[in-house]
Amino acid sequence: MAEERRLIMLPGPTNVPDRVMRAMLKPVINHRGPEFSALLDRVSEALKYVFETNQDVYVLTSSGTGAVECAISNVIDPGDKVIVPVFGYFSERLKEKVTRHGGKVVELPIEWGNAPTAKQIEDIVKKEKDVKLIAVVHNETSTGATVRELPEMGEIAVEKDVLLMADSISILGGDYLPVDEWDIDLCVAGSQKCLACPPGLAMVSVGKRAWEKIEKKTVKPPYYFDLISIRDHASRKETPFTPAISLYYALEESLKMIQEEGLEKRYHRHAKCAQAFYTALDALELKPYPAENVRSNTVIAVNVPQGIDGARIREVMAERYKVVIAGGLGKIRQKIIRIGCMGIVTEAEVLTTINALENALADLKHPIKIGAGIEAARQVFQ
Amino acid sequence: MAEERRLIMLPGPTNVPDRVMRAMLKPVINHRGPEFSALLDRVSEALKYVFETNQDVYVLTSSGTGAVECAISNVIDPGDKVIVPVFGYFSERLKEKVTRHGGKVVELPIEWGNAPTAKQIEDIVKKEKDVKLIAVVHNETSTGATVRELPEMGEIAVEKDVLLMADSISILGGDYLPVDEWDIDLCVAGSQKCLACPPGLAMVSVGKRAWEKIEKKTVKPPYYFDLISIRDHASRKETPFTPAISLYYALEESLKMIQEEGLEKRYHRHAKCAQAFYTALDALELKPYPAENVRSNTVIAVNVPQGIDGARIREVMAERYKVVIAGGLGKIRQKIIRIGCMGIVTEAEVLTTINALENALADLKHPIKIGAGIEAARQVFQ
Repeated sequence: MAEERRLIMLPGPTNVPDRVMRAMLKPVINHRGPEFSALLDRVSEALKYVFETNQDVYVLTSSGTGAVECAISNVIDPGDKVIVPVFGYFSERLKEKVTRHGGKVVELPIEWGNAPTAKQIEDIVKKEKDVKLIAVVHNETSTGATVRELPEMGEIAVEKDVLLMADSISILGGDYLPVDEWDIDLCVAGSQKCLACPPGLAMVSVGKRAWEKIEKKTVKPPYYFDLISIRDHASRKETPFTPAISLYYALEESLKMIQEEGLEKRYHRHAKCAQAFYTALDALELKPYPAENVRSNTVIAVNVPQGIDGARIREVMAERYKVVIAGGLGKIRQKIIRIGCMGIVTEAEVLTTINALENALADLKHPIKIGAGIEAARQVFQ
Repeated sequence: MAEERRLIMLPGPTNVPDRVMRAMLKPVINHRGPEFSALLDRVSEALKYVFETNQDVYVLTSSGTGAVECAISNVIDPGDKVIVPVFGYFSERLKEKVTRHGGKVVELPIEWGNAPTAKQIEDIVKKEKDVKLIAVVHNETSTGATVRELPEMGEIAVEKDVLLMADSISILGGDYLPVDEWDIDLCVAGSQKCLACPPGLAMVSVGKRAWEKIEKKTVKPPYYFDLISIRDHASRKETPFTPAISLYYALEESLKMIQEEGLEKRYHRHAKCAQAFYTALDALELKPYPAENVRSNTVIAVNVPQGIDGARIREVMAERYKVVIAGGLGKIRQKIIRIGCMGIVTEAEVLTTINALENALADLKHPIKIGAGIEAARQVFQ
């Protein structure tokens, strides 16, 4: 039943608007010709708007993971100390990427469901002295926790002359992220999350301080992720390697939609939808996984009620009620379910999802007051 | 004028059939769910048919370059001797990739427009003794030369216990390439060439002997290109990172078209079209760039006639006659023009292209007998 349209409430990929899907039908063109150069220009400019940056933003034909590896491998030399707060599956992965490129990980272990604070980062920077990079998963897609003190971490990075890399894959376009104002040297995003575009493209912004390090680096990054080569080609308005042209068209269209809506309005919409989710969960006596002060506006992670199988909840929601949500990852695979609150999400999608969740729980004999979640969410939207 | 349909006779990307384009409109799904697993299964099986292999074939969300880097970085350890025949722009690049991952390149320099022979490879393998890998660009997209003795190189590789990697990006699906029969340990392809799919995906087949090396490797490959992780995930019918789902749908459809046509018929069609091109060029007194015995069936490279600007030929062909062809790359950038003879190419596209070329040359005051090329090509098709 692959052809059937379901509501995709995953923490990526998300529902893609028809106009974005249709943009992929534009003719495949020469990626070494003026048409593609113009397309690349338009996309790059629009990305600067969304990243709120005057820095360069590059698009890679890869998943977000590829772009994080690109950022990491271009700025660390073997033996460089890198602070990695580890508080979920994706920050575990980040640690691996740093190690793979010769970085010496200074791990800041945080209980899953919480997020690192600026103070914690500052303490390590002071203690370790020669830290080169702070690498932070900005929004832990696996736990639904957002690092709220990223701006303060940017201040510390500038003050201590350390670089700051943010993996903002599951938050860019869905919550505040003024890259320049927050002094983020390398910010990574993906097409299939809050940008509401199909998967296959990722972006990385590169600031002035990052370039200084990149240009001095002794060990070269992977060929496919070489930012110096990417910058050289960008100056000629092209990409080093054949880009996923159809996805660039889609990205252009989704960025156009973001510009039409405006960032402020978009972030407010995401926040409102998240608030509705959390309020509904509360009314249903379901507990969000992350601590209250770090709950994400884009990924809603919920503890599976005792005695219920999370996989079954997802199955019933998808099969019977046509709403697709995700399970957990890593060590909390069974423990939680996750709902994406991303991209084109509005009141309608939130209510449909809560309704599907209530019904699935009732089907699975979990004692629940049908309608309580919807009623609570309604209040938020009114 | 990005919306205008032109005939894309580039050596990639190529014209994409409407049914392949439309396949991208299928709904974006959960890449961690059963629907994507089934899609991945179908694509993998169809790829085995095209690669003529029982080995594993993996799809990467990247350009072909990424997949070549994947192949290289997974099988060489620092200091490993790698034979790289260098006979064009892409084999120059291949050399760089080997170097970047610590390989010691043993270069076999070949005059551009020619191709390495098995004897040349054998001589180096014998002389160097401890060669670990023969890395060959199978079809030099930059010069239009095909390595015709790849099967013999496979024999040498097996006999001398050396691995063989073929960058078959611009030939797989357009000319004979029975990966298992030819003993190719790692074979790399791209979506946007002879498979007639949009760009953004690449494939790599990995044979038993390659796995033995991969498993023993001391230095890990880039995280994004880690074949062991890719294999682990493939065994659970998923990809390590979010795949470009829409492009997988397109690839599925284009592979279906290949199965419907049959490999033999498809290769014969490509060969016939190439023959028509070469015959027409001869009639027009235009000289192919590569030596006669290595001329490619998928990339037609032609010397620009004296006194004419190749860029102008392409411009007139594209703007006035709506046929898009490519220029040269690297040191022969100005010297040649290149025509893709790939994917869904038939008599119609060949004649349209020759017609556009004749007219553009006449417009540029090159002495040419209008119709001579068409007349010659007609003979081939009759």
